[in-house]
Amino acid sequence: MSFFKWDEGPTDELTPQVKRKVVHLENVMLVYTEREAGVEMPIHQHPHEQIGLVLQGKAEVILGDEKRVIGPGEGYLIPPNMKHGGLVGEEPIVLLAVFSPIRDDFLTEE
Amino acid sequence: MSFFKWDEGPTDELTPQVKRKVVHLENVMLVYTEREAGVEMPIHQHPHEQIGLVLQGKAEVILGDEKRVIGPGEGYLIPPNMKHGGLVGEEPIVLLAVFSPIRDDFLTEE
Repeated sequence: MSFFKWDEGPTDELTPQVKRKVVHLENVMLVYTEREAGVEMPIHQHPHEQIGLVLQGKAEVILGDEKRVIGPGEGYLIPPNMKHGGLVGEEPIVLLAVFSPIRDDFLTEE
Repeated sequence: MSFFKWDEGPTDELTPQVKRKVVHLENVMLVYTEREAGVEMPIHQHPHEQIGLVLQGKAEVILGDEKRVIGPGEGYLIPPNMKHGGLVGEEPIVLLAVFSPIRDDFLTEE
């Protein structure tokens, strides 16, 4: 796959409130996520580097001991093993996440 | 920098028609680019993996021997050293590019 369309790609419906689409190469992965209002992302950590970017909506994001409400055009940089989590605001959120290495646990078919 | 806002970050104005903003960790980089209508991205290649995603506007994108016009919600996956290029359509384009390893040549200050 060289070209992709989010609308045509497979969607992982993790819960009724959380949908995820994934594309990747060998070392880098781009993840598109829709989360309904009020969904919580519990604090967690992983060895993968992560960059997040909000496209629509707002969320309260916790990175280490910092907490901030961010919206469209705002994002965050998560070095390996930094604890992070969040809480979606009063409207659904659309956000992108970039990972390197890729999240093998996000692969559902190949 | 853990949180970022595209609006507040530095912008590299590569030409009057091309603006770029960059954030990165050690192994992964996210690039936000605005290109005016009709701007050409000449065919080139690099050893970095690249994922592109159009947020606004359209472009004709060439990947290897494939050519396609893509718009918002569409993107492409470029393995190392695949030749690629493009031509922005009749309105400005906003696109994201993800690289791993990071593009040292995109770093202007640190």
